[in-house]
Amino acid sequence: MYDRIDAALRSERMRPAALLDAWNIRVLATTNGATDELAAHAALRRGPLRGRVVPTFRPDDVTDISNPAWRDNIAKLRELTGEAVTSYESYLRALRARRRAFIDMGATASDHGAATPLTKVLPDARLKEIFGAALAGKASAADALDFGAHMLVEHARMSASDGLVMQLHAGVARNHDAALFARYGPDKGADVPLAVDWTGGLQPLLSELGNNANLTLVLFTLDESTYARELAPLAGHYSALRLGPPWWFHDSLHGMRRYLDSVVETAGVANLAGFNDDTRAFLSIPARHAVWRRAVADWVATQHAAGVLDWPDARAVAYDLAYGLAKKTYKL
Amino acid sequence: MYDRIDAALRSERMRPAALLDAWNIRVLATTNGATDELAAHAALRRGPLRGRVVPTFRPDDVTDISNPAWRDNIAKLRELTGEAVTSYESYLRALRARRRAFIDMGATASDHGAATPLTKVLPDARLKEIFGAALAGKASAADALDFGAHMLVEHARMSASDGLVMQLHAGVARNHDAALFARYGPDKGADVPLAVDWTGGLQPLLSELGNNANLTLVLFTLDESTYARELAPLAGHYSALRLGPPWWFHDSLHGMRRYLDSVVETAGVANLAGFNDDTRAFLSIPARHAVWRRAVADWVATQHAAGVLDWPDARAVAYDLAYGLAKKTYKL
Amino acid sequence: MYDRIDAALRSERMRPAALLDAWNIRVLATTNGATDELAAHAALRRGPLRGRVVPTFRPDDVTDISNPAWRDNIAKLRELTGEAVTSYESYLRALRARRRAFIDMGATASDHGAATPLTKVLPDARLKEIFGAALAGKASAADALDFGAHMLVEHARMSASDGLVMQLHAGVARNHDAALFARYGPDKGADVPLAVDWTGGLQPLLSELGNNANLTLVLFTLDESTYARELAPLAGHYSALRLGPPWWFHDSLHGMRRYLDSVVETAGVANLAGFNDDTRAFLSIPARHAVWRRAVADWVATQHAAGVLDWPDARAVAYDLAYGLAKKTYKL
Repeated sequence: MYDRIDAALRSERMRPAALLDAWNIRVLATTNGATDELAAHAALRRGPLRGRVVPTFRPDDVTDISNPAWRDNIAKLRELTGEAVTSYESYLRALRARRRAFIDMGATASDHGAATPLTKVLPDARLKEIFGAALAGKASAADALDFGAHMLVEHARMSASDGLVMQLHAGVARNHDAALFARYGPDKGADVPLAVDWTGGLQPLLSELGNNANLTLVLFTLDESTYARELAPLAGHYSALRLGPPWWFHDSLHGMRRYLDSVVETAGVANLAGFNDDTRAFLSIPARHAVWRRAVADWVATQHAAGVLDWPDARAVAYDLAYGLAKKTYKL
Repeated sequence: MYDRIDAALRSERMRPAALLDAWNIRVLATTNGATDELAAHAALRRGPLRGRVVPTFRPDDVTDISNPAWRDNIAKLRELTGEAVTSYESYLRALRARRRAFIDMGATASDHGAATPLTKVLPDARLKEIFGAALAGKASAADALDFGAHMLVEHARMSASDGLVMQLHAGVARNHDAALFARYGPDKGADVPLAVDWTGGLQPLLSELGNNANLTLVLFTLDESTYARELAPLAGHYSALRLGPPWWFHDSLHGMRRYLDSVVETAGVANLAGFNDDTRAFLSIPARHAVWRRAVADWVATQHAAGVLDWPDARAVAYDLAYGLAKKTYKL
Repeated sequence: MYDRIDAALRSERMRPAALLDAWNIRVLATTNGATDELAAHAALRRGPLRGRVVPTFRPDDVTDISNPAWRDNIAKLRELTGEAVTSYESYLRALRARRRAFIDMGATASDHGAATPLTKVLPDARLKEIFGAALAGKASAADALDFGAHMLVEHARMSASDGLVMQLHAGVARNHDAALFARYGPDKGADVPLAVDWTGGLQPLLSELGNNANLTLVLFTLDESTYARELAPLAGHYSALRLGPPWWFHDSLHGMRRYLDSVVETAGVANLAGFNDDTRAFLSIPARHAVWRRAVADWVATQHAAGVLDWPDARAVAYDLAYGLAKKTYKL
């Protein structure tokens, strides 16, 4: 097996660019921290993959002040932007500069992770206080929660200004296995979903920006009980919202059925973001999209057989779910 | 289009009473605040629609002390009842008088809205304190929550006495969009469901009145995760309970399937309230009932095909779900 | 009817041992409090049912310090074990002795009930404080909550040592109907499920013991929204976990479908515990297993028809769900 895999990996047809062609992948977006210099993307832009492989702005490394590496990341942010980042205002200028650098490298979207979808609009004095504490390495857990909640609103404001599509992945307890974490550190797979409150959590953000015509905000949940209860009604009211496809544990045949059955009747098809595979495994991409397309075909066929969708609508919905919605949502 | 619609609206066959006949509507119940004088209903009772169009007692206008208009509504309540309403006792007498006036106009039910299904039995001293604060315009948010929770119990007591069927619609965050609210005021559509706790919330009410033979309490939820987890087990134990049909966002084909699949195995058919359309659009009534009847037919046929219901039972269940249960639940 | 039932009950073929044979029941496990002397099981072990009817260790009677009978139960525990039980250490020794006595009578499992799946690892000083308060009859509600949460971890430690399979049934509000409770006391059927937090609740226990090769922990929920959101991801990470079958209100045809559709894609079949009927009615056992087997057959056939399971896999999965998994999980 090793020899066969090794030989395959050395063949020309298995080179990344050849696979992009073989699989007919139009665009592949990577996820990159705000302090990523994007050197690989700069190199890609000088070759034939220009515009086909693009970065995504994921600023958790500089917005999560509870991260032990936060101050180091801020130092990196200073280097990259030339901003002093000694005040909240300067910090925002640095973030805007990094967003601009990502856009220059082809990015069309940002991505934000959060344990809960809590958002807040903090008064300036509180922001100044928290930011000072964070720079001094003295921010509390409550400070970190408040700051993260505020920064989601701040990034939504920046998205409404610079046009990056904002993605929010919320509702997972990271590093659940304390023994594993003590031994091997973060991101080793022990992540477990939580019940979340989208309705209450997003209210401050949506009250300010939910109907802003320049904002697209894509929501991803691991709490399926919020599909019909919260997400579909929210997407039905706020024009900036799009519902992301079934994510992670729910990126499966039954997960897709539950998603479509739960959200479409209230949110409609046009408020869905289409499918993205959110994978860390390049080789898994074709299979993941194939599962989605088959699940969509099965669902659309069922709706047609039941008389809910006529044939032209069924064709249009299948096309949109498989291709059109993702292209439109992500401005590709 | 305008001309066609205008002409149709002027035709005799589109007059409300003609449509009631054309659609074979036996009873239509409106929703009316406690301070509604019911003049239109008084007029209706002098004509051929007597008993066919009836009011429903919705006292939120006089029980929600956080409503800025509460004191004005209390003034109206004084006028209508002749009660001084300077004490909680007098307030209760006024409420009983209004319930009686609604019953005299043909009402068979009351309806109550609440953000959560929280109920409480407050001691007299606390009630006196809150009521005094409310009359003085000084009630706190905590007072309003306590008072609303207590008034649900009080109305259940009154229902057990005067026989009005009590309906509780709970679990929605009203006026979610603060920008919309600031510009246009309440009830503009930005209402988003919340996760709710029926098990804990209703315990005080049900412990006192849940098995009272004179009480019928119909529960409506927007949190489908409570169907099988809380509502069906509650309805299985407390004889006063009936489960309302899929409501609002869940009044849809898949919403109805999830409802029937989730509640019937535990609660049985006889603990369901049957269907009411809860619509604000008169012209939508036939379509809404048709969707319910078809969803019921589909579900009953599936049960029959699977051998769960024999033919006589399937027929009886279909009849009850489409017609019999609603008639019985609402004492029509 | 009475005469027919009476005659049947007197017949040889209706004697318990005859029914065990007629129904082909290999093992029947009773549930017994920690202070149960197991006299009946001792008698059974001297006859032909030795090893076929076994006890299950259910220590809630001596771990729930809010139980008014707790001190009486501790007195009984002293008698049975010869331990003084005047300190937490001696209490643990007594528990270990009772577990050993159960194992000697054939037990392979313990069972634990809890309103929530909260677990905690308390420091020794706090344990000493709570245990002293409990012995003095002065433990608070907060003490009882802490102690119960800690004892789940302690029992998991003991299971990892002595090999008893640990079962946790969590998420029900007992004695919900206060009027019924006041008149007839506990365990009269007014039990209503609650939303629960498995992800947060189990974290302390699982971080210490979730990957312990000697522990098997079987989880039972009444909150179906946790199947896909929490339980399947937890079982996918922690090797000690097994997901118990649909329990109580969800031990039904649709309940079983929702369970299989929600957990298998993430947790796999091998992380399920198989079926146990959890019944209090001996005569209901064959029907309950028949419903499970038919639900499994229906689900497996659907997976096979959809091309998800090939024929050999479908056969193997059906066998495991109906028989193999339960045998393996419970070490039978």
